[in-house]
Amino acid sequence: MRPINETLAAMTLEEKAALCSGQDFWTTRAIEHLDVPALMLSDGPHGLRKQPDGPGADHAGLLDSVPATCFPTAAGLASSWDTALLTTLGEALGDEAQSEGVDVVLGPGTNIKRSPLCGRNFEYFSEDPLLSSRLASAHIQGVQAKGVGASLKHFAANNQEHRRMSVDARIDERALREIYLASFEEAVKQAEPWTVMCAYNRVNGPYCSEHARLLSEILREEWGFDGVVVSDWGAVNERVAGLEAGLELEMPGSGDTRTREIVAAVEQGRLDEAVLDRAVERLLRLIQRTSTRRRPESRVDLDDHHQLARRIARESMVLLKNEGALPLAAGQRVAVIGEFAARPRFQGGGSSHVNPYRVDTPLDAMQARGEQVDYAQGVAIDRDDIDQALLDEAVKCAQNAEVAVLFLGLPERYESEGYDRQHLDMPANQHALIEAVHAVQPNIVVVLANGSPVTMPWLAKASAVLEAYLGGQAMGVAVTDLLFGDSSPCGKLAETFPQRLEDTPCHLDFPGTGDVVNYSEGIFVGYRYVEAKRMAPLFPFGHGLSYTTFEYQDLTLSSRAMSADETLEVQVAVTNTGRRAGKEIVQLYISDHSRTLPVAPKALRHFAKVYLVPGASTTLRFTLSRRDFAYFDVERNAWRVPSGQFVVRIGASSADIRLSQSLQVRGDAPTVPHLDRNTLVGDLEGFPALKQTLRDELASLASQSPLLTALAEEPADEAQGDEMIAAMLRYMPLRSLVAFTAGALDETRLDRLVARLRQRA
Amino acid sequence: MRPINETLAAMTLEEKAALCSGQDFWTTRAIEHLDVPALMLSDGPHGLRKQPDGPGADHAGLLDSVPATCFPTAAGLASSWDTALLTTLGEALGDEAQSEGVDVVLGPGTNIKRSPLCGRNFEYFSEDPLLSSRLASAHIQGVQAKGVGASLKHFAANNQEHRRMSVDARIDERALREIYLASFEEAVKQAEPWTVMCAYNRVNGPYCSEHARLLSEILREEWGFDGVVVSDWGAVNERVAGLEAGLELEMPGSGDTRTREIVAAVEQGRLDEAVLDRAVERLLRLIQRTSTRRRPESRVDLDDHHQLARRIARESMVLLKNEGALPLAAGQRVAVIGEFAARPRFQGGGSSHVNPYRVDTPLDAMQARGEQVDYAQGVAIDRDDIDQALLDEAVKCAQNAEVAVLFLGLPERYESEGYDRQHLDMPANQHALIEAVHAVQPNIVVVLANGSPVTMPWLAKASAVLEAYLGGQAMGVAVTDLLFGDSSPCGKLAETFPQRLEDTPCHLDFPGTGDVVNYSEGIFVGYRYVEAKRMAPLFPFGHGLSYTTFEYQDLTLSSRAMSADETLEVQVAVTNTGRRAGKEIVQLYISDHSRTLPVAPKALRHFAKVYLVPGASTTLRFTLSRRDFAYFDVERNAWRVPSGQFVVRIGASSADIRLSQSLQVRGDAPTVPHLDRNTLVGDLEGFPALKQTLRDELASLASQSPLLTALAEEPADEAQGDEMIAAMLRYMPLRSLVAFTAGALDETRLDRLVARLRQRA
Repeated sequence: MRPINETLAAMTLEEKAALCSGQDFWTTRAIEHLDVPALMLSDGPHGLRKQPDGPGADHAGLLDSVPATCFPTAAGLASSWDTALLTTLGEALGDEAQSEGVDVVLGPGTNIKRSPLCGRNFEYFSEDPLLSSRLASAHIQGVQAKGVGASLKHFAANNQEHRRMSVDARIDERALREIYLASFEEAVKQAEPWTVMCAYNRVNGPYCSEHARLLSEILREEWGFDGVVVSDWGAVNERVAGLEAGLELEMPGSGDTRTREIVAAVEQGRLDEAVLDRAVERLLRLIQRTSTRRRPESRVDLDDHHQLARRIARESMVLLKNEGALPLAAGQRVAVIGEFAARPRFQGGGSSHVNPYRVDTPLDAMQARGEQVDYAQGVAIDRDDIDQALLDEAVKCAQNAEVAVLFLGLPERYESEGYDRQHLDMPANQHALIEAVHAVQPNIVVVLANGSPVTMPWLAKASAVLEAYLGGQAMGVAVTDLLFGDSSPCGKLAETFPQRLEDTPCHLDFPGTGDVVNYSEGIFVGYRYVEAKRMAPLFPFGHGLSYTTFEYQDLTLSSRAMSADETLEVQVAVTNTGRRAGKEIVQLYISDHSRTLPVAPKALRHFAKVYLVPGASTTLRFTLSRRDFAYFDVERNAWRVPSGQFVVRIGASSADIRLSQSLQVRGDAPTVPHLDRNTLVGDLEGFPALKQTLRDELASLASQSPLLTALAEEPADEAQGDEMIAAMLRYMPLRSLVAFTAGALDETRLDRLVARLRQRA
Repeated sequence: MRPINETLAAMTLEEKAALCSGQDFWTTRAIEHLDVPALMLSDGPHGLRKQPDGPGADHAGLLDSVPATCFPTAAGLASSWDTALLTTLGEALGDEAQSEGVDVVLGPGTNIKRSPLCGRNFEYFSEDPLLSSRLASAHIQGVQAKGVGASLKHFAANNQEHRRMSVDARIDERALREIYLASFEEAVKQAEPWTVMCAYNRVNGPYCSEHARLLSEILREEWGFDGVVVSDWGAVNERVAGLEAGLELEMPGSGDTRTREIVAAVEQGRLDEAVLDRAVERLLRLIQRTSTRRRPESRVDLDDHHQLARRIARESMVLLKNEGALPLAAGQRVAVIGEFAARPRFQGGGSSHVNPYRVDTPLDAMQARGEQVDYAQGVAIDRDDIDQALLDEAVKCAQNAEVAVLFLGLPERYESEGYDRQHLDMPANQHALIEAVHAVQPNIVVVLANGSPVTMPWLAKASAVLEAYLGGQAMGVAVTDLLFGDSSPCGKLAETFPQRLEDTPCHLDFPGTGDVVNYSEGIFVGYRYVEAKRMAPLFPFGHGLSYTTFEYQDLTLSSRAMSADETLEVQVAVTNTGRRAGKEIVQLYISDHSRTLPVAPKALRHFAKVYLVPGASTTLRFTLSRRDFAYFDVERNAWRVPSGQFVVRIGASSADIRLSQSLQVRGDAPTVPHLDRNTLVGDLEGFPALKQTLRDELASLASQSPLLTALAEEPADEAQGDEMIAAMLRYMPLRSLVAFTAGALDETRLDRLVARLRQRA
């Protein structure tokens, strides 16, 4: 390619317009006479879904793609809390993309899990923006290190499938910033993705595909994004409006219909050609980035990747409960029950559907390990009714064993891209299976395959529960590794498992009414809600067991006071106090006790995963800084640190806080309230000069209202013995003094009072 | 007074302007040469608070008013569920007003109890708009039957005291209509109050005092209000804007400052004089209404009113729990413990504070009845700490008795107009008192005096709990009547008692941030929330015990199907199956199972209170009509009945449903969706001609996208075996067909398709 400026200058209006949308389903247009190659994009993000183009190409995972490694989906990946692992995954994905000539792999998807019902949650990381954003960042860094672009998606607030192409997500600005955008923010700033994919939905009015505030003001100007914004497939509403708002590339292509639209808009003066040039320049930069990094000769060893998929799956599974049934002893007679043991569910439906190069089933893996296993299907996974013959067979199988391992979870039809779940329940026949097996075999281990939380009315009947999520093509061996203790489980939940659907934060507002969904729970998503409402979830955010135990000691803060622009070092020692090697995920939460505005009882701010052999100890270090204490101040459109007490908490989960220390923060300087006729008397509190100005004015009046006497003589908060007078004064606007002085303070004097206050401010 | 037109025509601009605000704190200006008398207003609503005017007059209940009868406050009144009783109360209030020359008695206050923390809840009726509105209606009818105006307040959405003069209540239109305005609507339509008082706060932007949509469009044009809107005292922001919006009378007076403002606005052409004339005409009509009904000679017998206060109090108290301790047997040795027994709290603080003509204490009333009572103070009500000497004395007192009756509740400083509560707890020393007494006396009866719900961690230690609310000046005798079984308790809760503050619907959004409070729970207020979230409250809405028992039988509906504009008769038989006479409050709820939009599991639609002697039976009849099944359709700005299944439920409380019957409703005709490029394919469902038009268009394309093949060939909902395709098509906007047909359907054809659809609609 020639230098970008030169290429741009040489392009015709038609060529520029044509570059802004696809050539077909997966590629952009090459401009051969200018040496501009076509870009090839492919679905991701937990495995490559490169589809041959042409008739029948789709974005719905309906048709087969080239064989690739299917890694665990994001719900599992997130449970690893392991950024290095995500980078490794990204690198593997980048290598597979290089070997297939793919320039951009779509993903990762970092939307917040607002409701466990969202059909696409299996592709998303977490309910927590910090965890989500860090993992996305690591994933992007891995992919891009291999010279392949990532596409951070779906920007923004694409938190449901129901009416996803038309729904307007109405989110208050604070929740948008602190939760939904924060989930993208660090990934954009740290990992610098080459592309960002805009979402289908609308956010507070405009479609994301033409949302200037999101695509330009926040993403580019505020966060410094310098890549290309690509539309989700079919997300564009008005093409020209999208271009102006900052959407460079529309996918898939629509023949030359868009080219004609853009050309006409420029020719008719409805679109400034400079806007088009800016978009084309960004597109050329992306094409340059990828084309200069192409390694057409590269090949991957899919067997190596299968072993990597196994390792990643092991790190991604969460031991939810264990009363001692796990690990299984070698040689134990094991009844393996459930169709998922033989035909595992290991990925989700939709655009991320990978054509796996190889699949290991749990049953095969156990047999390959030389274990004594008997298998019974138990239930037919494609039906919800009870098949008594299968049930009887399972009972018989369980009866003769020392332990029954049940492979259960959600059938594919229960969750998918495209639609949301209606409930959190597993099929009723699986409950019946547990009941029936439990009647003859109290030693039950349940292994779950599902992309998002399920209710567990059967929980008391299980001795152990391993959440395998959608574990990718090597889930069978990975599960076997964990069940038999070759490795200790080391994942922790990146989302809350609620007791019941009614306990979820957005239960009353999901999926909305018509094309409006109000995010009425605001910032109180996931564990933030559970804790603010003091509820008991089934399993809390951050929860996960191990075959060993860890002790936390010696939490120290480098200071017990800091100002908003200083940093603070936190240290904590962790020791493996058990008898096996294992990994612990240490979580640092911060509680804001400043009482500045409603806040979640605590928020995750840092985490680390450490490997320790028995008896070993390590000291973890975290650096706290401004943003860890900040909230988004909607009025000032800025992050702001309040003054007051904060508490640093170190936990093994959000509900298992081991150590805490409090801290005084001197936040950003208080700003004088807006001063006008509607300023409240009480809002002058803390500004002595303003209060004195008001008292002087009132003292000069001849009014004898008992309220005003109190006001003129005493600060409102000291009015003794009568909280009501104090409250009335505190909440009284200056303009009400006109009425409460019977006009002694008239509008002219009120104007003068306001002017004086402004002078003193 | 001369005819209104004539008077208006004779008034000068200054006189007209001057009539629009008070002469002083409590009266309007007389225009002597035109025979226009002054209006006198006084605080209410559960007793007259007529204050001498002049220096020191206040709207805060700080200064003494003329002696009057203090009835129970609205929280208690509402628990009677007795509209006839509210009318009787209104009449008594009207009589007292006449005898004092008062023209308008402020109240009733019918704001919804959004949070139990609202400091003014003791003055409001309920969390349910139907109950609230019916009781307000009955109250107004009573007052106005005596020739005295009522003032329905505080219009609207004044649901907290925190920053009440500046806060903006942001409420979605459906919740505003179905909950917050509905609480006023029936009262305005049925009782035709002569005045309505606008609230201090803002609603979705504008101050209520200048809210044209509320004061003119909804109140007058839609509901037919023909009275005068008066400002809450000091609620006016911009006087001229208020006048234009429909606020006729500003109170209190501000000398002549407002007159000058209005005159200047007319003279400078900023205010159309016709607007002023309209306001003055309404004011003159009000003055005519009251002045022609004045009975200066009327006197009231305050002793009679005291007996009425006693009867009303008896009907207003709620027996929350009774394990058999009540009724007390005559002659039982009773330990009466708690300062409230000797110095009862029987009304709230603020503008409704009455100077009671006489007060009966529970202790006096029991002694007067000849009971064997010993008294101990237990705790000092003005302090929260434990006084060991008082505690010891109480224990001793309880030890020697057969039963301990503890008079507990909230000290006045815990709840008042002016500020909200911070928590739901009673003072800690009262908990300690119960513990201490319980250690020596297991037979404990708790009588509560409070204006709003409290938590009861001590509940298991009480054999019986009588909620007396703020029972007015005769609460002492009324409580005694109930405790000793002279009457059976017959009140039921008009509000949910939550287990914990965290369980309240608006916990995460009360009292808001700065001057914004988002009503994010929407329509899910009170029991609507508790039921939608399947929570267990401490005591549910509608709960109340009796000394007798009632059985419900023979629920019959006149039809099992109806159309939106028909009516339906419901009958149910109720029998007193116990051994005492008593009253039962029968509640009719309706559940909307039409799945049209999110709804509360059920909503109160009718109720009746019946008196039955033992063995007696009666059949209650309710007529269901359109509004009982309707929701507020925000898009169409109209009440709308959906089609589908509804269930009629008859309950003794919201949580104690005795009988249910289902019903098919044929609702309002479905309307064709808005047809444009963004119409969803799935929204054409149910309109065969539109679907066929779309299929014809697609069949004519040469596109081979698998999605489109499915769409052209089969209705989306029949796509077999693949829910994902069905969902993708259902949620796809027409304009996305451009991309998904690779431009075969271009923008021109899309426009033509939309045009054809519109033709067929």
